[in-house]
Amino acid sequence: MTYTAPLKDMLFAMRELAGLDTVNALPGCEDATVDTVEAVLEEHAKFCGSVVAPLNWPSDREPSYWHDGQVTTASGFKPAFKAFAEAGWQGVQHPVEFGGQGLPKLVATPCIEMLNAASISFALVALLSDGAIEALLTAGSDAQKAAYLEPLVSGRWTGTMNLTEPQAGSDLSAVRSRAVPQDDGSYKVFGTKIFITYGDHDMAENIVHLVLARTPDAPAGVKGISLFVVPKFMVNADGSLGARNDVECVSIEHKLGIKASPTAVLQFGDHGGAAATLVGEENRGLEYMFIMMNAARFGVGMQGIGLAERSYQQAVAFARDRLQSRDLSGSPGPVAIIHHPDVRRMLMSMRAHTEAARALAYVGAAVSDIARHHRDAATRAASLAVYEYLVPIIKGWSTEMAQDVTRDGVQVHGGMGFIEETGAAQHFRDAKILTIYEGTTAIQANDLVGRKTLRDGGATARSIIAQVRATEAQLAALAGGAHGADFAAILRRLSEGSVALEAVVDYVAGSAKTDIKAVFSGSVLYLRLAGIVLGGWQMARAAIISQKKLDAGDSDASFYQAKIGTARFFADHILSQAPGLRGAIVDGSSGVLALSAEQF
Amino acid sequence: MTYTAPLKDMLFAMRELAGLDTVNALPGCEDATVDTVEAVLEEHAKFCGSVVAPLNWPSDREPSYWHDGQVTTASGFKPAFKAFAEAGWQGVQHPVEFGGQGLPKLVATPCIEMLNAASISFALVALLSDGAIEALLTAGSDAQKAAYLEPLVSGRWTGTMNLTEPQAGSDLSAVRSRAVPQDDGSYKVFGTKIFITYGDHDMAENIVHLVLARTPDAPAGVKGISLFVVPKFMVNADGSLGARNDVECVSIEHKLGIKASPTAVLQFGDHGGAAATLVGEENRGLEYMFIMMNAARFGVGMQGIGLAERSYQQAVAFARDRLQSRDLSGSPGPVAIIHHPDVRRMLMSMRAHTEAARALAYVGAAVSDIARHHRDAATRAASLAVYEYLVPIIKGWSTEMAQDVTRDGVQVHGGMGFIEETGAAQHFRDAKILTIYEGTTAIQANDLVGRKTLRDGGATARSIIAQVRATEAQLAALAGGAHGADFAAILRRLSEGSVALEAVVDYVAGSAKTDIKAVFSGSVLYLRLAGIVLGGWQMARAAIISQKKLDAGDSDASFYQAKIGTARFFADHILSQAPGLRGAIVDGSSGVLALSAEQF
Repeated sequence: MTYTAPLKDMLFAMRELAGLDTVNALPGCEDATVDTVEAVLEEHAKFCGSVVAPLNWPSDREPSYWHDGQVTTASGFKPAFKAFAEAGWQGVQHPVEFGGQGLPKLVATPCIEMLNAASISFALVALLSDGAIEALLTAGSDAQKAAYLEPLVSGRWTGTMNLTEPQAGSDLSAVRSRAVPQDDGSYKVFGTKIFITYGDHDMAENIVHLVLARTPDAPAGVKGISLFVVPKFMVNADGSLGARNDVECVSIEHKLGIKASPTAVLQFGDHGGAAATLVGEENRGLEYMFIMMNAARFGVGMQGIGLAERSYQQAVAFARDRLQSRDLSGSPGPVAIIHHPDVRRMLMSMRAHTEAARALAYVGAAVSDIARHHRDAATRAASLAVYEYLVPIIKGWSTEMAQDVTRDGVQVHGGMGFIEETGAAQHFRDAKILTIYEGTTAIQANDLVGRKTLRDGGATARSIIAQVRATEAQLAALAGGAHGADFAAILRRLSEGSVALEAVVDYVAGSAKTDIKAVFSGSVLYLRLAGIVLGGWQMARAAIISQKKLDAGDSDASFYQAKIGTARFFADHILSQAPGLRGAIVDGSSGVLALSAEQF
Repeated sequence: MTYTAPLKDMLFAMRELAGLDTVNALPGCEDATVDTVEAVLEEHAKFCGSVVAPLNWPSDREPSYWHDGQVTTASGFKPAFKAFAEAGWQGVQHPVEFGGQGLPKLVATPCIEMLNAASISFALVALLSDGAIEALLTAGSDAQKAAYLEPLVSGRWTGTMNLTEPQAGSDLSAVRSRAVPQDDGSYKVFGTKIFITYGDHDMAENIVHLVLARTPDAPAGVKGISLFVVPKFMVNADGSLGARNDVECVSIEHKLGIKASPTAVLQFGDHGGAAATLVGEENRGLEYMFIMMNAARFGVGMQGIGLAERSYQQAVAFARDRLQSRDLSGSPGPVAIIHHPDVRRMLMSMRAHTEAARALAYVGAAVSDIARHHRDAATRAASLAVYEYLVPIIKGWSTEMAQDVTRDGVQVHGGMGFIEETGAAQHFRDAKILTIYEGTTAIQANDLVGRKTLRDGGATARSIIAQVRATEAQLAALAGGAHGADFAAILRRLSEGSVALEAVVDYVAGSAKTDIKAVFSGSVLYLRLAGIVLGGWQMARAAIISQKKLDAGDSDASFYQAKIGTARFFADHILSQAPGLRGAIVDGSSGVLALSAEQF
């Protein structure tokens, strides 16, 4: 099964929903004209479809493997990454100063989606490099920037994030790795890190490990964690590579999915200490790591959307081809299963979820660009608040939905879906990591409740809900015209959704002080509700714009009619869950907390 | 990870919800006294926990394999099946006349659950034999019964169901295998069958294939399919085994899950024809196969419940052991993750779904016993209608819920869940087949809509809803007492659920003639709604009974309090989805059918 990037839908979401024009008008984003963006996306689509996508299934069958401290990546990965780097794709969103293309996040986002649709296992190496670049840009010294950024941006080297330790999974306060200062101002790092994505591999000349560790006198907990750079090979003053550093890949994991992406156990300092330099200031490591993590979390959300798209494409292709049973309304012989209502329902659910999550993520990317580049400080601040509110939703909801979509993707294939050779099962296996790494869905939900809702008393959430209400007013104006029944249904469900979301924001903001456990009992459901309502909002916006295009006699009527139909599906099938979720959140903590630990 | 059968909950569901006493009072069920049943269940629990459960994970890592036309099953399977057979477990529900124990379905059902919780891959061989026994008992000739039943019931031989062909998956009208009559009244069978569970293996002396094929002058479609017995080894008049028959296992599938269960491609008749005898009458094969399938579908539902229970047990054990982060309400150090609200929510969801599905299935088993054994013909007929209404729900809902539960089971484990060695991922992979084989969820839903709702105009469904209403009246009486808030919440949600289900039954019964595609667009959602409401009904009944036990001063207060708490969770978190589902069914067909096939 191949993958064809859905350029038309991507450009629709970028232009009509996320506001590419507005982003293009920001200082520093002048290059992102419609023509340039189209050209970039088309070129990247070609690369992903022809070079990367064909590697996905074979690399699952014969994954990357470890032997004697070295990881050999799956067949084809090394040349493909070389081609990726040489074409400049690692640098799409990074500064021109370090060899990047300096394009806005809104343009990088569909590129990330495509690469992940082509192969999540492959795309991960680039995603981790993006995070390392981001952290060094923010907090690295001039020397670190000079040494590491150009090779990372050019894709000659790659980056990693070293957070997790055996006793410290989601809870970074438990990190024990040590960093011992040396006389020359550098450090020696000691410790074991697990679950390190692309912690070792053979696709680049060097690997730049960003590592959380504690200095000797650091305070306990998260306030005593510092961030270090530990290169796999030492870097000489002229940029050439020196000796092997004291970091060793002692094993890689045997995983449910993303098998071609090596997940390493790294041992630092078993032979005298791994040479390291401090990033930024001591004890501020977690803060810097969060910079990487916000970018990485957004990126994982895009992985979910890319994977959902690929699973959808494969299911549609199968459903068109597979003949089975007669049509319900009568047919001379068996028909393609795409004509059976429940297959249609699954395909529509896959499609509607994917389009809604894509639209929301692209809108988030544009908001991030405004937060970064807008001339007006107040606009930047307001946009940053909205973007930060959206990140846990984009990460958490898009990845949970990817699990729903890939499950339907297998189901559409019937018995063939359960056979590995079909390839649908790979997506289902791959998707399961997405709700776990870079913070589980519960961690995203904690972030949504704590930092993103309680900290401002729900103000940002309410400002977004006000925007949803403005869309509802536009829907009301369309309820009498063409597709009036669709718009009336979308309005009804979106209104129920925004009412539910507002009630939940009020509940969260109002109850945290009196009953914190009750609020967190519903945190993941609040995240799901927010995803559904804000995704449904984008679908409604898409339908409104589509109706305007149709009214204006646009020649692509089929595309816009499908948009309205898909929005209608989203409203009746997905937004309709909103009131039930509100009930589960507001009334449901009693059941969640009813049993003692011993009663399980 | 081991498995401990939840005997207490099983016996609660059997005695208090399904009415073991009532079943025990039926003619032919006199042996099923509480004491006997407890002894049988305890003994089976020991066998499943100590002999079968330890095979589950190793047999996934080193599955059954094919070589040169022979399947060698996973290590340990052969001696375990010998022990299973010798202890008489294959015969629990089969007639004493053929060596079985003749116990009611209500007693066999928890046994099936336990065996599947221990290992679905292993249990499948027994499940398929059950189906073959059932079909031969119903439609086999005296000679066939004499030749095959005792060896099948004793577990010396095993059975298979041969339906699917490459071009005929869910649609059996497309079956092409041929059966050519011979002069002696026997037949020669020719054709290829795929997806044949335990189509070849080394765990029994002989394999009894039940095969769908067409005789030369058979009418087209499902009315021209006959059922044949094709033994792997010919059976001599004295019961000894003769020559190898002309049926060959040409390969087995490489699957997402249940890897230790060999899924065979069988080639019949490549060397002159496979010797076969007709079961029952010509052209009635589908009817007989449905007898097997109803039993097998119920059994697959039990597989879902067993798997969900095992996944739940493993998740609880991990959540108790794994220390991570402080308690939300403050703690000196990290606490076991079972104390974190979202972990608690996932565990409660796993527990509530599993208990509800178990209770509904056991109630269904008892209704089946009444339908078979009751003295009064009208009672038998009414019970049969209820049982047949429940079968697609027990199959479809229990297996879809098993996918939700095993997904949460991985998620509770965080990063460790994605590592195959942990074992949680195996359950997630195994669960995916359950919504596919023995009829996909859509096929179950078609059955629920067509045969089970439209055929009697919704009468059976409404008779069940009337029983739900009676439970609501009992809940109302408890809303003022101890746990009054819980009972009020359960009442509110169950009432919303029964209203939604009744509205959907009215919609289905009322709209099928005018808009059949619209009705079938919501068929799977109708099945889900019915599962939620009827499962929630059983949880409500369990809560009512538990309150009575508490009021009577029962010494096991913790068990009954947990029942009420779990019912409360089910009401607020699962039953609360019912109104949204109603909306998606009644209003949602427009969205499902909005696009043409070309617009996907």
